[in-house]
Amino acid sequence: MLVVMKAQATPEEIQAVCDHIVQLGFRPHPLPGAQRTAIGITGNQGEVDRGNLESLSGVAEVIRVSKPYKLASRDVKEEDTVIRFAGSSATIGARDLAVVAGPCSIESRDQALAIAEQVAAAGARFFRGGAYKPRTSPYAFQGLGLDALKVMSEIREKFGLRIITEALDSDTLDLVAEWADVVQIGARNMQNFSLLKKAGRLRKPVLLKRGLSATLEEFLMAAEYVMSEGNYEVILCERGVRTFSDHARNTLDLSIVPALQRVSHLPLLVDPSHGTGRRDSVLPMARAAVAAGADGVMVEVHNHPESALSDGPQSIYPEQFASMMVELEQLAPIVGRTLPRAVSAAVQ
Amino acid sequence: MLVVMKAQATPEEIQAVCDHIVQLGFRPHPLPGAQRTAIGITGNQGEVDRGNLESLSGVAEVIRVSKPYKLASRDVKEEDTVIRFAGSSATIGARDLAVVAGPCSIESRDQALAIAEQVAAAGARFFRGGAYKPRTSPYAFQGLGLDALKVMSEIREKFGLRIITEALDSDTLDLVAEWADVVQIGARNMQNFSLLKKAGRLRKPVLLKRGLSATLEEFLMAAEYVMSEGNYEVILCERGVRTFSDHARNTLDLSIVPALQRVSHLPLLVDPSHGTGRRDSVLPMARAAVAAGADGVMVEVHNHPESALSDGPQSIYPEQFASMMVELEQLAPIVGRTLPRAVSAAVQ
Amino acid sequence: MLVVMKAQATPEEIQAVCDHIVQLGFRPHPLPGAQRTAIGITGNQGEVDRGNLESLSGVAEVIRVSKPYKLASRDVKEEDTVIRFAGSSATIGARDLAVVAGPCSIESRDQALAIAEQVAAAGARFFRGGAYKPRTSPYAFQGLGLDALKVMSEIREKFGLRIITEALDSDTLDLVAEWADVVQIGARNMQNFSLLKKAGRLRKPVLLKRGLSATLEEFLMAAEYVMSEGNYEVILCERGVRTFSDHARNTLDLSIVPALQRVSHLPLLVDPSHGTGRRDSVLPMARAAVAAGADGVMVEVHNHPESALSDGPQSIYPEQFASMMVELEQLAPIVGRTLPRAVSAAVQ
Amino acid sequence: MLVVMKAQATPEEIQAVCDHIVQLGFRPHPLPGAQRTAIGITGNQGEVDRGNLESLSGVAEVIRVSKPYKLASRDVKEEDTVIRFAGSSATIGARDLAVVAGPCSIESRDQALAIAEQVAAAGARFFRGGAYKPRTSPYAFQGLGLDALKVMSEIREKFGLRIITEALDSDTLDLVAEWADVVQIGARNMQNFSLLKKAGRLRKPVLLKRGLSATLEEFLMAAEYVMSEGNYEVILCERGVRTFSDHARNTLDLSIVPALQRVSHLPLLVDPSHGTGRRDSVLPMARAAVAAGADGVMVEVHNHPESALSDGPQSIYPEQFASMMVELEQLAPIVGRTLPRAVSAAVQ
Repeated sequence: MLVVMKAQATPEEIQAVCDHIVQLGFRPHPLPGAQRTAIGITGNQGEVDRGNLESLSGVAEVIRVSKPYKLASRDVKEEDTVIRFAGSSATIGARDLAVVAGPCSIESRDQALAIAEQVAAAGARFFRGGAYKPRTSPYAFQGLGLDALKVMSEIREKFGLRIITEALDSDTLDLVAEWADVVQIGARNMQNFSLLKKAGRLRKPVLLKRGLSATLEEFLMAAEYVMSEGNYEVILCERGVRTFSDHARNTLDLSIVPALQRVSHLPLLVDPSHGTGRRDSVLPMARAAVAAGADGVMVEVHNHPESALSDGPQSIYPEQFASMMVELEQLAPIVGRTLPRAVSAAVQ
Repeated sequence: MLVVMKAQATPEEIQAVCDHIVQLGFRPHPLPGAQRTAIGITGNQGEVDRGNLESLSGVAEVIRVSKPYKLASRDVKEEDTVIRFAGSSATIGARDLAVVAGPCSIESRDQALAIAEQVAAAGARFFRGGAYKPRTSPYAFQGLGLDALKVMSEIREKFGLRIITEALDSDTLDLVAEWADVVQIGARNMQNFSLLKKAGRLRKPVLLKRGLSATLEEFLMAAEYVMSEGNYEVILCERGVRTFSDHARNTLDLSIVPALQRVSHLPLLVDPSHGTGRRDSVLPMARAAVAAGADGVMVEVHNHPESALSDGPQSIYPEQFASMMVELEQLAPIVGRTLPRAVSAAVQ
Repeated sequence: MLVVMKAQATPEEIQAVCDHIVQLGFRPHPLPGAQRTAIGITGNQGEVDRGNLESLSGVAEVIRVSKPYKLASRDVKEEDTVIRFAGSSATIGARDLAVVAGPCSIESRDQALAIAEQVAAAGARFFRGGAYKPRTSPYAFQGLGLDALKVMSEIREKFGLRIITEALDSDTLDLVAEWADVVQIGARNMQNFSLLKKAGRLRKPVLLKRGLSATLEEFLMAAEYVMSEGNYEVILCERGVRTFSDHARNTLDLSIVPALQRVSHLPLLVDPSHGTGRRDSVLPMARAAVAAGADGVMVEVHNHPESALSDGPQSIYPEQFASMMVELEQLAPIVGRTLPRAVSAAVQ
Repeated sequence: MLVVMKAQATPEEIQAVCDHIVQLGFRPHPLPGAQRTAIGITGNQGEVDRGNLESLSGVAEVIRVSKPYKLASRDVKEEDTVIRFAGSSATIGARDLAVVAGPCSIESRDQALAIAEQVAAAGARFFRGGAYKPRTSPYAFQGLGLDALKVMSEIREKFGLRIITEALDSDTLDLVAEWADVVQIGARNMQNFSLLKKAGRLRKPVLLKRGLSATLEEFLMAAEYVMSEGNYEVILCERGVRTFSDHARNTLDLSIVPALQRVSHLPLLVDPSHGTGRRDSVLPMARAAVAAGADGVMVEVHNHPESALSDGPQSIYPEQFASMMVELEQLAPIVGRTLPRAVSAAVQ
């Protein structure tokens, strides 16, 4: 259910409607728009009686949201969600393409800084690097943990890059949220509902990767879990799904880009590194993602991929990353985008 | 790596080998067999030097385990693992077929007791019921939590049934382990590695459901996560995978039964309720699962499925459950099994 | 559309209704049942006007068939279709389980006769063997063609087995139909609509294998193509579908057995050899197929599978086949079936 | 096996090698390249003895081709294959992007000409339209057949467009080849090996669509079937595969574009209409296909899609097609391509 306020509704009227919703045993989600505020109503105690709500002061109309996802839906919020970062002009979901780059895992301070310097010089605004790694085998390298978080914090200071890194579980969620700018929830955790709810109580944007066999609706329902707890800054990320097709590690499902954009206002990145698992497919698929309308890409870059502790075969070289940036910059205007590549202060 | 001890090796010799492994920075997993003890070695610090180990007293040979899963592999433990329960003749993985039955969710004490009485009367030895429910929507019924656990505890007392219920996250894991006999890890959590590791520190058997797009190897690697922490009582459960095929909710992959049994010693149940999502497919698929060689089945039974709070369409009626038991009892000897259906004391 | 005749309708009345349907530009399909005859109406020229039909003599009612498949549907024919063979008590779709066995390809007269003798002795009533082979590579063994058909004809004479073999294309369809008792349409040809229509003009039963990515509805629509041309003797065969799951060659979708039986009257076999691609999975899956309610199984048997020209790894040994027959005989009564294993005359 | 001739080998030497290969019971495939001629050797009678071949005059070396596909492989022919058409500057596989457009089915002369005029005006060089339609239901519209072929012939004359249309079976193959410029083999026929072989005897290019569950290797093996019969002009076409993902009709597998280009020299188009099944996904996916490196796109265009006899929901409007052409023209140089949109003579 969605309460649409009149354009001239006052903050007091909005507050009164929220209070009333709380009294009814539901949760209000005020969502300010360019023209007027809408208030989403969620809760699992059954139907809201719309009669009373419609009679409240400042209310324009009360709308039933037919989709199972409410807050993630364009029915509830028509305008694209844009994620902004204090003290930075970097955005996700705006006209500027967002490019996230970095190694699969932070393996050492030297490695991470070397890569960060190169991707920053090529124009990346976001740095990714695994501190806590979800590994199929309990005997594989599990990440450097807090040390990696600290290295990435240094990278933010030095190169002005915003940091995106994965939180594996509730134990490390707060720590990751403390050090990172965006908290990633990985594909294997896309339906870890407890973790999603906890991420919903953070005050940091959440990058949510699509599960290996998640439908579009399940993907948005996972975002809804985060949003239902009050965190509306969710970034979706397509990273390939699992099918019979064996020429690539996963099947990158690019046609979900226009499909998601039709029904949701959330920003959407594409990860062609995990999406293909092959270095020589990353550039073509990064171009394809932007051409399809994605808000940006997330790629693995490594200066010595042949000796990487994880995901070497899908990591591109820094030079390839620089080429990719040139290509995406050319591509951007065709899809109504820009790719600002102002070199960061520290590198100049 | 696996250290096979001589048949006549003493407990002291076994302990000495374990101590030596710890000194090397690895973890020893002593696995007693019918003939002799084997000691699995795990850890992610690289290769073990086998020379020293082979020269220790009581050691027969040191074997490299080629599969990525070690402790879950038949290479490490040839004999089938059997799960036993103190104070009960019920087993999982032995000659007796294990039958787990109960509602998707515990909805009320009355509902749960009524169903428990009926499934016990029909010969079930295990009761399942959701206390904490993983739901696609944050707005759907999430389970009764601790109250449900208490109801199931009462069911154990009253009907002598062993209780299997899902732990959704680390917050509730200990609580579930305290009240239940077997802790279930759901399909969506199959690669929630933190949860798996914590379940590995429990001293309760863990029932691990196959993920919706998990390969056989990933399934066993998830079991390996639990076992690598010292909990060797893992029960595997096939519950259908996600494919293009749309005549059923999932595609029940029964041919994984012989495939798993070839490579792993862990017991394996099949869940035809989630595996098909259709009441009228549950009995045929339960028979098929046993005919394929599964160690038992796990089915959803509800006395009023049409008004169930979750999974109504796939829940069978108590009378259907009773028919299923008769059929499985007839089927059992053909696959070298028995289905003991001694009516529980409380019902007599 | 379906015209249901009254129980006492005369042959003349039935003929008059058929004539009327032809006049309207449609095709009548008289389908005699135990109680009364129904007449299916097909054609792609639009809607039939039911008013006139209902007023014809002998007509009980005219029913709209809501499913896209008409003649294959239980709405049109409630009773199970049974395929019978002149001069043989072998059936497909009746109470007796149908067992089809033989090598993937006929490689030589000696090989084929040796295998045929063994499977006949173990109780098979049907013999399968490839004369024309659909091979992924143009450079692979393509079958012995007419010579193979002649060898199988000899096998029919000698061992009383009914012959099932694949017709690859319209060029060889008539030839195969001339020599075989059942014409197989392979999985790769399941939507070769021209071939299906031509098979619909044969007067021999057609065994139709499910395509590797066919839904239940597409499978029945393929059967409908054959039936729409007047050949109502279609045998369905589940042989595994293509999914991400890699522990077997295909994913045997056994839950399609009850799903198909709910909506269609056509008999249904299961092929656990192609369904799994692994010798040691064939017996468990053959048992599972029968336990799920299939009308029989189709298995590859080879006396020297290690040197087979095709599909060696999935072919079972004659001794395994004999064991399978013993197991299926025991299983049959549990699912209301029998497995007559009278040794064929020639072998006695 | 591949015989690489010396750069200065004479036609007589090449012929002598071919004759020798025929004598050995194999088939020679002379493939002229920019530098020198290679001769592929195919046949299914076993191994070729390379010793004799290497001693023949003009032979540089004899190479074993390790891939199962030989003639389709870059090992055998390194340079991209380009398809050219007599009397037209249109190409497939060269620097120019190839754009194929037209309705799913030819429904009437008026409809087809109206659409052809519009797509020609927007710059398409190729026209597609179904004359013989593969339909899931035997009761659905099956195409206008020869009449449709004649209409398309008129379109070629009038608008200078090259015609691509599907041949459903061997009965109509010669007819289609007579009237069309490119013969399409549909996805459902991708492993109709008899049809592929017959298409291999045509002297017209063949557009081969990927099957719904075909792997990359199977796709190339299907092309190999055509090529093994001597027709080397095969155009591959990705059109989406079947997966669990339900937001689109199929899952367009764009990452097969770089994967195929790595291993094969054959040109590759992408069909975003069948690939997505949704009109509003066609433009984004057409852009993505070109950005990924495809040699062109094939799209369904209809002037009245709401009343189309087939595939209306995925057909774009002529105005959308014109926009697409503008976007692809802008995109082309970024991937080293051009999109010549010279308006055809007849339209001027």
